[in-house]
Amino acid sequence: MKQTWKGSTLLAPVPSVMVSCGRGDTANIITIGWVGIAASHPPKLYISVRPERYSFNIIKESGVFCVNLPTAEMATALDFCGVKSGKDIDKFAHCRLTKADCVNIDCVAIEECPINLECKVAQVLDLGSHHMFLADILGVTVDESLVDDKGRLMLEKANLVTYAHGDYFGLGKKLGDFGFSIRKRKNLKRNRK
Amino acid sequence: MKQTWKGSTLLAPVPSVMVSCGRGDTANIITIGWVGIAASHPPKLYISVRPERYSFNIIKESGVFCVNLPTAEMATALDFCGVKSGKDIDKFAHCRLTKADCVNIDCVAIEECPINLECKVAQVLDLGSHHMFLADILGVTVDESLVDDKGRLMLEKANLVTYAHGDYFGLGKKLGDFGFSIRKRKNLKRNRK
Repeated sequence: MKQTWKGSTLLAPVPSVMVSCGRGDTANIITIGWVGIAASHPPKLYISVRPERYSFNIIKESGVFCVNLPTAEMATALDFCGVKSGKDIDKFAHCRLTKADCVNIDCVAIEECPINLECKVAQVLDLGSHHMFLADILGVTVDESLVDDKGRLMLEKANLVTYAHGDYFGLGKKLGDFGFSIRKRKNLKRNRK
Repeated sequence: MKQTWKGSTLLAPVPSVMVSCGRGDTANIITIGWVGIAASHPPKLYISVRPERYSFNIIKESGVFCVNLPTAEMATALDFCGVKSGKDIDKFAHCRLTKADCVNIDCVAIEECPINLECKVAQVLDLGSHHMFLADILGVTVDESLVDDKGRLMLEKANLVTYAHGDYFGLGKKLGDFGFSIRKRKNLKRNRK
Protein backbone atom coordinates (compact mmCIF):
# COMPACT_ATOMS: atom_id res chain seq x y z
CA MET A 1 0.00 0.00 0.00
CA LYS A 2 2.75 2.50 0.93
CA GLN A 3 6.09 3.15 -0.72
CA THR A 4 9.08 4.12 1.39
CA TRP A 5 10.98 7.13 0.06
CA LYS A 6 13.98 8.99 1.41
CA GLY A 7 13.40 12.14 3.43
CA SER A 8 12.18 15.12 1.40
CA THR A 9 10.23 18.35 1.70
CA LEU A 10 6.92 16.68 0.89
CA LEU A 11 4.76 18.82 3.18
CA ALA A 12 1.71 20.08 1.26
CA PRO A 13 -0.09 22.32 0.79
CA VAL A 14 2.06 25.14 2.13
CA PRO A 15 1.59 28.92 1.97
CA SER A 16 3.03 30.85 -0.95
CA VAL A 17 3.65 34.43 0.09
CA MET A 18 5.41 37.48 -1.33
CA VAL A 19 8.06 38.72 1.07
CA SER A 20 9.06 42.32 0.50
CA CYS A 21 12.32 43.73 1.81
CA GLY A 22 14.46 46.83 1.58
CA ARG A 23 12.99 50.19 0.57
CA GLY A 24 13.39 52.79 -2.15
CA ASP A 25 15.89 51.59 -4.75
CA THR A 26 16.76 48.39 -2.85
CA ALA A 27 13.12 47.31 -2.51
CA ASN A 28 12.66 43.72 -3.63
CA ILE A 29 10.15 40.87 -3.50
CA ILE A 30 10.89 37.17 -3.01
CA THR A 31 8.23 34.48 -3.14
CA ILE A 32 8.52 32.11 -0.20
CA GLY A 33 6.90 28.75 0.52
CA TRP A 34 8.98 27.90 3.55
CA VAL A 35 7.04 30.14 5.94
CA GLY A 36 4.90 29.47 8.98
CA ILE A 37 3.74 30.70 12.36
CA ALA A 38 6.28 29.86 15.07
CA ALA A 39 4.33 31.03 18.13
CA SER A 40 0.99 32.67 18.89
CA HIS A 41 2.01 34.81 21.90
CA PRO A 42 4.06 36.80 21.20
CA PRO A 43 3.15 36.39 17.52
CA LYS A 44 6.17 35.07 15.66
CA LEU A 45 6.75 33.63 12.23
CA TYR A 46 9.69 32.33 10.27
CA ILE A 47 10.81 32.40 6.68
CA SER A 48 13.60 30.18 5.36
CA VAL A 49 15.75 31.73 2.61
CA ARG A 50 18.74 30.45 0.64
CA PRO A 51 21.87 32.60 1.27
CA GLU A 52 22.42 32.92 -2.49
CA ARG A 53 19.11 34.71 -3.00
CA TYR A 54 19.30 38.47 -3.58
CA SER A 55 16.88 39.18 -0.75
CA PHE A 56 18.95 37.26 1.79
CA ASN A 57 21.44 40.02 2.51
CA ILE A 58 18.80 42.74 2.37
CA ILE A 59 16.84 40.97 5.11
CA LYS A 60 19.94 40.04 7.11
CA GLU A 61 21.32 43.58 7.04
CA SER A 62 18.05 45.43 7.60
CA GLY A 63 16.68 42.93 10.14
CA VAL A 64 13.14 43.43 8.85
CA PHE A 65 10.81 42.09 6.17
CA CYS A 66 7.12 42.09 5.31
CA VAL A 67 5.03 38.99 4.53
CA ASN A 68 2.39 39.95 1.95
CA LEU A 69 -0.47 37.54 1.25
CA PRO A 70 -1.23 37.40 -2.49
CA THR A 71 -4.61 36.81 -4.10
CA ALA A 72 -5.37 34.36 -6.91
CA GLU A 73 -5.46 37.32 -9.32
CA MET A 74 -1.79 37.93 -8.44
CA ALA A 75 -0.66 34.39 -9.27
CA THR A 76 1.50 35.45 -12.22
CA ALA A 77 3.37 38.03 -10.13
CA LEU A 78 3.60 35.53 -7.27
CA ASP A 79 5.31 33.00 -9.50
CA PHE A 80 7.50 35.59 -11.23
CA CYS A 81 8.91 36.84 -7.93
CA GLY A 82 9.92 33.26 -7.11
CA VAL A 83 11.77 32.46 -10.34
CA LYS A 84 13.47 35.77 -11.16
CA SER A 85 16.17 37.55 -9.19
CA GLY A 86 16.07 41.11 -7.92
CA LYS A 87 19.72 41.33 -9.05
CA ASP A 88 18.49 41.47 -12.64
CA ILE A 89 15.11 43.13 -12.53
CA ASP A 90 12.99 45.58 -10.55
CA LYS A 91 10.14 43.25 -9.60
CA PHE A 92 7.86 46.03 -8.36
CA ALA A 93 8.11 47.79 -11.72
CA HIS A 94 7.95 44.64 -13.81
CA CYS A 95 4.89 43.26 -12.00
CA ARG A 96 3.30 46.73 -11.75
CA LEU A 97 3.05 46.46 -7.99
CA THR A 98 2.86 49.47 -5.71
CA LYS A 99 5.41 50.15 -2.98
CA ALA A 100 3.80 50.97 0.36
CA ASP A 101 5.55 51.92 3.61
CA CYS A 102 5.27 49.55 6.54
CA VAL A 103 3.92 51.17 9.70
CA ASN A 104 6.07 49.46 12.32
CA ILE A 105 9.32 48.79 10.46
CA ASP A 106 11.52 50.60 7.96
CA CYS A 107 10.58 48.33 5.04
CA VAL A 108 8.55 48.24 1.86
CA ALA A 109 5.17 46.45 1.64
CA ILE A 110 3.07 45.44 -1.38
CA GLU A 111 -0.02 47.64 -1.57
CA GLU A 112 -1.97 45.18 -3.78
CA CYS A 113 -1.74 42.36 -1.20
CA PRO A 114 -4.78 42.58 1.08
CA ILE A 115 -2.84 41.52 4.18
CA ASN A 116 0.68 42.49 5.18
CA LEU A 117 2.54 41.17 8.22
CA GLU A 118 5.36 43.44 9.37
CA CYS A 119 8.21 41.39 10.83
CA LYS A 120 11.36 42.13 12.79
CA VAL A 121 14.04 39.44 12.80
CA ALA A 122 14.78 38.05 16.27
CA GLN A 123 17.05 35.12 15.44
CA VAL A 124 18.73 33.55 12.39
CA LEU A 125 19.48 29.81 12.24
CA ASP A 126 21.80 28.31 9.62
CA LEU A 127 20.08 25.04 8.68
CA GLY A 128 22.02 24.07 5.55
CA SER A 129 20.46 25.03 2.22
CA HIS A 130 18.39 27.69 3.96
CA HIS A 131 18.74 30.05 6.87
CA MET A 132 15.68 30.40 9.06
CA PHE A 133 14.73 33.96 9.97
CA LEU A 134 12.63 33.85 13.14
CA ALA A 135 10.80 37.14 13.52
CA ASP A 136 8.30 38.99 15.68
CA ILE A 137 5.13 40.07 13.89
CA LEU A 138 4.98 43.69 15.04
CA GLY A 139 1.86 44.69 13.16
CA VAL A 140 -0.59 43.69 10.44
CA THR A 141 -2.31 45.83 7.82
CA VAL A 142 -5.60 44.62 6.41
CA ASP A 143 -7.54 45.85 3.40
CA GLU A 144 -10.75 47.53 4.54
CA SER A 145 -12.79 45.55 2.02
CA LEU A 146 -12.10 42.44 4.14
CA VAL A 147 -13.41 43.96 7.38
CA ASP A 148 -17.14 43.98 8.16
CA ASP A 149 -19.10 46.62 10.10
CA LYS A 150 -18.29 44.96 13.41
CA GLY A 151 -14.54 44.90 12.69
CA ARG A 152 -14.48 41.17 11.92
CA LEU A 153 -12.14 39.87 9.27
CA MET A 154 -13.90 38.21 6.31
CA LEU A 155 -10.81 36.39 5.08
CA GLU A 156 -12.88 34.16 2.81
CA LYS A 157 -13.29 37.22 0.55
CA ALA A 158 -9.53 37.54 0.06
CA ASN A 159 -9.24 34.79 -2.58
CA LEU A 160 -5.93 33.53 -1.17
CA VAL A 161 -3.46 31.10 -2.73
CA THR A 162 -1.84 27.88 -1.57
CA TYR A 163 0.97 25.78 -3.07
CA ALA A 164 1.33 22.01 -3.37
CA HIS A 165 4.18 20.10 -4.99
CA GLY A 166 4.90 22.67 -7.69
CA ASP A 167 1.37 23.93 -8.33
CA TYR A 168 -0.46 27.03 -7.13
CA PHE A 169 -4.13 26.64 -6.17
CA GLY A 170 -6.99 28.79 -5.04
CA LEU A 171 -8.95 27.64 -2.00
CA GLY A 172 -11.72 25.15 -2.71
CA LYS A 173 -14.73 23.82 -0.86
CA LYS A 174 -15.07 24.72 2.82
CA LEU A 175 -14.90 21.51 4.82
CA GLY A 176 -15.79 22.90 8.22
CA ASP A 177 -14.65 25.39 10.82
CA PHE A 178 -12.47 24.84 13.86
CA GLY A 179 -14.35 22.72 16.39
CA PHE A 180 -17.05 21.55 13.96
CA SER A 181 -16.30 17.89 14.69
CA ILE A 182 -17.50 18.11 18.28
CA ARG A 183 -20.33 20.53 17.62
CA LYS A 184 -21.59 18.17 14.93
CA ARG A 185 -21.33 15.26 17.34
CA LYS A 186 -23.34 17.14 19.98
CA ASN A 187 -25.97 18.01 17.40
CA LEU A 188 -26.15 14.40 16.28
CA LYS A 189 -26.66 13.26 19.85
CA ARG A 190 -29.33 15.88 20.37
CA ASN A 191 -31.10 14.78 17.22
CA ARG A 192 -31.04 11.17 18.33
CA LYS A 193 -32.87 11.92 21.61
CA MET B 1 -7.74 51.49 2.11
CA LYS B 2 -5.81 49.54 4.79
CA GLN B 3 -6.46 49.22 8.51
CA THR B 4 -3.52 48.96 10.90
CA TRP B 5 -3.86 46.13 13.43
CA LYS B 6 -1.55 44.91 16.13
CA GLY B 7 0.72 41.93 15.40
CA SER B 8 -1.10 38.61 15.12
CA THR B 9 -0.82 35.17 13.55
CA LEU B 10 -2.69 36.23 10.41
CA LEU B 11 -0.73 34.09 7.97
CA ALA B 12 -3.13 32.18 5.71
CA PRO B 13 -3.70 29.66 4.38
CA VAL B 14 -1.47 27.35 6.41
CA PRO B 15 -1.17 23.56 6.42
CA SER B 16 -3.31 21.54 8.80
CA VAL B 17 -1.61 18.24 9.52
CA MET B 18 -2.08 15.35 11.94
CA VAL B 19 1.08 14.78 13.97
CA SER B 20 1.32 11.32 15.49
CA CYS B 21 3.61 10.59 18.41
CA GLY B 22 4.39 7.83 20.88
CA ARG B 23 3.55 4.22 20.12
CA GLY B 24 1.44 1.42 21.53
CA ASP B 25 -0.62 2.67 24.48
CA THR B 26 0.95 6.13 24.44
CA ALA B 27 0.20 6.68 20.74
CA ASN B 28 -1.51 10.02 20.19
CA ILE B 29 -2.46 12.48 17.45
CA ILE B 30 -2.35 16.26 17.59
CA THR B 31 -3.55 18.50 14.78
CA ILE B 32 -1.01 21.21 14.00
CA GLY B 33 -1.25 24.34 11.87
CA TRP B 34 2.05 25.85 12.94
CA VAL B 35 4.18 23.62 10.71
CA GLY B 36 6.47 24.29 7.74
CA ILE B 37 9.59 23.31 5.86
CA ALA B 38 12.69 24.81 7.47
CA ALA B 39 15.30 23.73 4.91
CA SER B 40 15.43 21.70 1.69
CA HIS B 41 18.88 20.09 2.10
CA PRO B 42 19.02 18.37 4.47
CA PRO B 43 15.20 18.22 4.56
CA LYS B 44 13.99 19.76 7.80
CA LEU B 45 10.65 20.87 9.12
CA TYR B 46 9.32 22.37 12.31
CA ILE B 47 6.19 22.07 14.35
CA SER B 48 5.28 24.48 17.13
CA VAL B 49 3.44 22.97 20.09
CA ARG B 50 2.13 24.46 23.34
CA PRO B 51 3.83 22.88 26.41
CA GLU B 52 0.41 22.23 27.99
CA ARG B 53 -0.63 19.90 25.17
CA TYR B 54 -0.58 16.17 25.94
CA SER B 55 1.63 15.43 22.93
CA PHE B 56 4.28 17.93 23.99
CA ASN B 57 6.01 15.68 26.53
CA ILE B 58 5.62 12.60 24.34
CA ILE B 59 7.49 14.35 21.53
CA LYS B 60 10.02 15.96 23.83
CA GLU B 61 10.84 12.68 25.58
CA SER B 62 10.83 10.42 22.51
CA GLY B 63 12.56 12.96 20.25
CA VAL B 64 10.50 11.81 17.26
CA PHE B 65 7.15 12.47 15.61
CA CYS B 66 5.40 11.82 12.31
CA VAL B 67 3.66 14.46 10.18
CA ASN B 68 0.67 12.83 8.45
CA LEU B 69 -1.10 14.70 5.63
CA PRO B 70 -4.88 14.29 5.90
CA THR B 71 -7.35 14.19 3.03
CA ALA B 72 -10.61 16.15 2.77
CA GLU B 73 -12.48 12.95 3.68
CA MET B 74 -10.64 13.00 7.01
CA ALA B 75 -11.65 16.57 7.92
CA THR B 76 -13.78 15.50 10.90
CA ALA B 77 -10.91 13.48 12.42
CA LEU B 78 -8.49 16.30 11.58
CA ASP B 79 -10.58 18.78 13.53
CA PHE B 80 -11.31 16.37 16.38
CA CYS B 81 -7.59 15.74 16.98
CA GLY B 82 -7.11 19.48 17.34
CA VAL B 83 -9.85 20.19 19.86
CA LYS B 84 -9.70 17.09 22.10
CA SER B 85 -6.85 15.96 24.36
CA GLY B 86 -5.15 12.60 24.33
CA LYS B 87 -5.28 12.80 28.13
CA ASP B 88 -8.99 12.09 27.95
CA ILE B 89 -9.48 9.96 24.88
CA ASP B 90 -7.77 7.45 22.58
CA LYS B 91 -7.91 9.42 19.36
CA PHE B 92 -6.89 6.50 17.14
CA ALA B 93 -9.78 4.42 18.48
CA HIS B 94 -12.29 7.25 18.54
CA CYS B 95 -11.54 8.38 14.98
CA ARG B 96 -11.20 4.75 13.78
CA LEU B 97 -7.70 5.41 12.51
CA THR B 98 -5.11 2.67 12.04
CA LYS B 99 -1.76 2.71 13.82
CA ALA B 100 1.17 2.03 11.48
CA ASP B 101 4.84 1.73 12.38
CA CYS B 102 7.22 4.35 11.06
CA VAL B 103 10.14 2.92 9.09
CA ASN B 104 12.94 5.22 10.26
CA ILE B 105 11.88 6.14 13.77
CA ASP B 106 10.31 4.43 16.76
CA CYS B 107 6.95 6.16 16.39
CA VAL B 108 3.38 5.59 15.30
CA ALA B 109 2.05 6.82 11.93
CA ILE B 110 -1.52 7.16 10.63
CA GLU B 111 -2.15 4.54 7.97
CA GLU B 112 -5.12 6.40 6.42
CA CYS B 113 -3.04 9.49 5.63
CA PRO B 114 -1.57 9.08 2.13
CA ILE B 115 1.72 10.77 3.02
CA ASN B 116 3.71 10.45 6.23
CA LEU B 117 6.87 12.37 7.05
CA GLU B 118 9.04 10.70 9.68
CA CYS B 119 10.85 13.30 11.78
CA LYS B 120 13.62 13.26 14.35
CA VAL B 121 13.92 16.31 16.61
CA ALA B 122 17.21 18.18 16.21
CA GLN B 123 16.55 21.30 18.27
CA VAL B 124 13.83 22.75 20.51
CA LEU B 125 13.31 26.52 20.84
CA ASP B 126 11.17 28.03 23.59
CA LEU B 127 9.34 30.88 21.83
CA GLY B 128 6.69 31.76 24.42
CA SER B 129 3.26 30.22 23.94
CA HIS B 130 4.79 27.49 21.79
CA HIS B 131 8.02 25.57 21.62
CA MET B 132 9.39 25.01 18.12
CA PHE B 133 10.56 21.47 17.39
CA LEU B 134 13.04 21.62 14.52
CA ALA B 135 13.42 18.15 13.05
CA ASP B 136 15.15 16.22 10.28
CA ILE B 137 12.80 14.48 7.85
CA LEU B 138 14.40 11.03 7.80
CA GLY B 139 11.95 9.36 5.44
CA VAL B 140 8.60 9.69 3.74
CA THR B 141 5.98 7.03 3.04
CA VAL B 142 3.62 7.56 0.12
CA ASP B 143 0.44 5.73 -0.79
CA GLU B 144 0.97 3.72 -3.96
CA SER B 145 -2.24 5.07 -5.45
CA LEU B 146 -0.52 8.47 -5.73
CA VAL B 147 2.47 7.17 -7.70
CA ASP B 148 2.30 6.68 -11.47
CA ASP B 149 4.05 4.02 -13.58
CA LYS B 150 7.18 6.15 -13.86
CA GLY B 151 7.42 6.67 -10.11
CA ARG B 152 6.14 10.24 -10.24
CA LEU B 153 3.99 11.58 -7.45
CA MET B 154 0.48 12.60 -8.50
CA LEU B 155 -0.20 14.71 -5.44
CA GLU B 156 -3.23 16.35 -7.06
CA LYS B 157 -5.02 13.04 -6.49
CA ALA B 158 -4.51 13.22 -2.72
CA ASN B 159 -7.36 15.65 -2.04
CA LEU B 160 -5.37 17.56 0.60
CA VAL B 161 -6.59 20.12 3.10
CA THR B 162 -5.58 23.66 3.97
CA TYR B 163 -6.61 25.97 6.81
CA ALA B 164 -7.36 29.68 6.81
CA HIS B 165 -8.48 31.81 9.75
CA GLY B 166 -10.48 29.08 11.46
CA ASP B 167 -11.81 27.24 8.41
CA TYR B 168 -10.67 24.05 6.69
CA PHE B 169 -10.72 24.02 2.88
CA GLY B 170 -10.04 21.61 0.07
CA LEU B 171 -7.80 22.79 -2.73
CA GLY B 172 -9.55 24.73 -5.49
CA LYS B 173 -8.74 25.80 -9.01
CA LYS B 174 -5.16 25.28 -10.22
CA LEU B 175 -3.69 28.70 -10.97
CA GLY B 176 -0.44 27.59 -12.57
CA ASP B 177 2.69 25.60 -11.90
CA PHE B 178 6.06 26.79 -10.71
CA GLY B 179 7.70 28.90 -13.44
CA PHE B 180 4.51 29.37 -15.49
CA SER B 181 4.86 33.16 -15.38
CA ILE B 182 8.04 33.17 -17.46
CA ARG B 183 7.08 30.29 -19.74
CA LYS B 184 3.89 32.12 -20.57
CA ARG B 185 5.87 35.27 -21.32
CA LYS B 186 8.21 33.39 -23.67
CA ASN B 187 5.24 31.85 -25.45
CA LEU B 188 3.61 35.24 -25.78
CA LYS B 189 6.79 36.64 -27.36
CA ARG B 190 6.99 33.72 -29.74
CA ASN B 191 3.37 34.20 -30.78
CA ARG B 192 3.98 37.88 -31.52
CA LYS B 193 6.72 37.13 -34.07
